[in-house]
Amino acid sequence: MKFAVGVDIGGTTIKFGLFQREGECIYETRQDTGAERPYEQVLIDIVNVIKNMLKENKVSEEDLVGIGIGIPGPVTGESKVNHCVNLGWEEVDVGHYIKRHFNCQVKVGNDANVAALGEIWTGAAKGYRSMVLVTLGTGIGGGIVIDGKILAGSHGAGGEIGHMPFLQQALNRICGCGGKRCFEQMCSAPNIVIRAKELLEKSDQESVLRENISNLDTEIIYKAAARGDKLAIEITDETAKEMGRALAIIGAVIDPEVFVIGGGVSAAGDGLFKPLRNYYEKYCFREGKDVPIIRASLGNRAGIFGAASLVIS
Amino acid sequence: MKFAVGVDIGGTTIKFGLFQREGECIYETRQDTGAERPYEQVLIDIVNVIKNMLKENKVSEEDLVGIGIGIPGPVTGESKVNHCVNLGWEEVDVGHYIKRHFNCQVKVGNDANVAALGEIWTGAAKGYRSMVLVTLGTGIGGGIVIDGKILAGSHGAGGEIGHMPFLQQALNRICGCGGKRCFEQMCSAPNIVIRAKELLEKSDQESVLRENISNLDTEIIYKAAARGDKLAIEITDETAKEMGRALAIIGAVIDPEVFVIGGGVSAAGDGLFKPLRNYYEKYCFREGKDVPIIRASLGNRAGIFGAASLVIS
Repeated sequence: MKFAVGVDIGGTTIKFGLFQREGECIYETRQDTGAERPYEQVLIDIVNVIKNMLKENKVSEEDLVGIGIGIPGPVTGESKVNHCVNLGWEEVDVGHYIKRHFNCQVKVGNDANVAALGEIWTGAAKGYRSMVLVTLGTGIGGGIVIDGKILAGSHGAGGEIGHMPFLQQALNRICGCGGKRCFEQMCSAPNIVIRAKELLEKSDQESVLRENISNLDTEIIYKAAARGDKLAIEITDETAKEMGRALAIIGAVIDPEVFVIGGGVSAAGDGLFKPLRNYYEKYCFREGKDVPIIRASLGNRAGIFGAASLVIS
Repeated sequence: MKFAVGVDIGGTTIKFGLFQREGECIYETRQDTGAERPYEQVLIDIVNVIKNMLKENKVSEEDLVGIGIGIPGPVTGESKVNHCVNLGWEEVDVGHYIKRHFNCQVKVGNDANVAALGEIWTGAAKGYRSMVLVTLGTGIGGGIVIDGKILAGSHGAGGEIGHMPFLQQALNRICGCGGKRCFEQMCSAPNIVIRAKELLEKSDQESVLRENISNLDTEIIYKAAARGDKLAIEITDETAKEMGRALAIIGAVIDPEVFVIGGGVSAAGDGLFKPLRNYYEKYCFREGKDVPIIRASLGNRAGIFGAASLVIS
C-alpha cells in the first residue's frame, strides 16, 4: 500500500492529510501556523507533524510516495515561494527544506491552484482535465488547471484572477494589491458588503438590510434577496453580472471545460448561481456557452486533497 | 537532412513554407484559397502544392518529418476544425484528410496560436517558453503558449482575447461575435478609426484628421498623434490605456513571460508601445511589472513558421 501526504499552509492554520493512492483521506490533523515565528520553525513543525502522523498510522517512510504542499503565495518551479504576504515570508525554498527530512519527492504549489487540483482529483470537477476554480471569500482566489496541470505562471502568479483590472472606471477604494479596478473589489465578500452599505447610504428605499448595518454580511444579503428585498436584489444582481463578465473574460483567454465556484459566498446557492449563469451566457464567447458553472465540493479540505494529488497523479 | 512543411490557410490566400529542422525557411509559395469551393477541393489543392514543392526542392517524402497547418478557426485535438467562419467550413478533420496523402505526421492548430509558436520558434519571442501574441489588425487575434505548448482551449477557443467582454458599459455597435463589450471593439484597426470618427463628430477641436475623414486609417491617426494633433493623441492614448488594461487582465490570468504585439496597428511603433507600457505597468498585478511587451518580428510569415514548428519541436 502506498501513501501520500497533503499539507495546506494557511496564515493561521496548517492542515495535514494522509492519503491512499486512490484519493481516500485516511487521517487528518491541523495545527496553528504561528506565522509570527521565523519560517524555519514553521517548517520544522511541519516535518514533525508529518513524522508523527506517519507513526500514528503505522505508515513507514518507504511507503510514502511523496509530500505535496499548498502555500499562500506565488510558487515557482514546484518548490520555491517568492513573496508570501500572509506568512511574512520572502523567498523560501520550501520544497528543498522539507525534502532534506524525507526520502521521497516533495512538490509545492500555490494554495488556490492546489485547491483546484483537489476539486479535479476527488471533488466537484472530478473527471475534468481543464478548469478554473474561483474562490469567493475575504479575497478572490483563482486556480487554473490545463490538461491536468496547474497553470502556475512564469512568476507564480497564474490564476490571480481577483486582480484582473476589469473595471473601466477606477473605484475610490484601493485593493490590497494597490489596484482600483480589480474583480475582487466588486465580488469578494467584504466588497459585496461595502457595495451594499454604499447603496443603503445613497438610497432611501426600505430594506431589511438597514436593521443591522454594522453586522451586515453576504449571508444576510443573499437571504434578504431571496425574500424579495429590492435593495438586496440590486446588490446580488450586480454581483452576478460582474462575476458573469469576469468568468466570460477568463473563458475568452483560456477556454476551460468547467468553472468551479468555492469560498463563503458560494454558500448562497441558487441566489448566486442562477443569475450568474444568465449573465455568463450573455457575455461569453459562443464556444463557451455550455461550459458548466458548478459549486466546489471539498470546502476548505480542497487544499490537502490537491496537495496530495501533486505527488500522486 | 530532415524537412518540415508549414501551411497557413487564410480566407483569401494559403501560404506554404519548406523548412529545415533548425528553422530555416528554404522555400515559400502561396496560392489563392478559393474558399467558395467545397472544402475537399481546397484540401486537395494543398496536397498538390506540397507534393510539387517537395519535388521542386528535390526533397523526398521519406525526409519529411511532418506537415503543420494553421487554420482560422477553433481547432480541437490537433486535427479538427470546428466552425471556421472565414472559410465557411463546419466540422472538418483537416489533419485526417491531409494525412491520407502523406506518410508523415500532420498537426493542425488555430492560426493565431500557430503564429505565436512561430514567434517563439524563430521570431521576436525566441528563447521564451510562455507568451501571449496579440494581433491588432482587422480584428484582434490572440495566441497563447504555455511551457512551449499552445493553449488551444477545450473548445479550440483558447486565446480568443479579442472577445473578452472587458467593457463595463455596453457599446452601441455590435461586434462580429455578437458582443458589445469586446476588447476588439476598442482596439482593432477599424474600431480605432470608428472611435476617432465619433470623437471628430462630437468635438469642434481642430485636427488634421478632419482633412480626409473618408480615408482615415490608423497610420494617419498615429502619424497625426506623433506630430502633436490633440484629437489624434486623445484616441491613441485611450487605445493604449484600454490595451494596457487588456494585457494586465490577461497577465492576471496566465502570467506569461512576454507579450508580443503584431498586426497592422503594431507598425505605429513607439507611438503605441510607449504609452502601452505605461498603462500596462499602472494596471498589472505586481508580479508581472517587468514582463516585456515587444513587437512581433515575423509579420504575416509567422503562420508558416509556427505551423512547421508544430511538427518539428
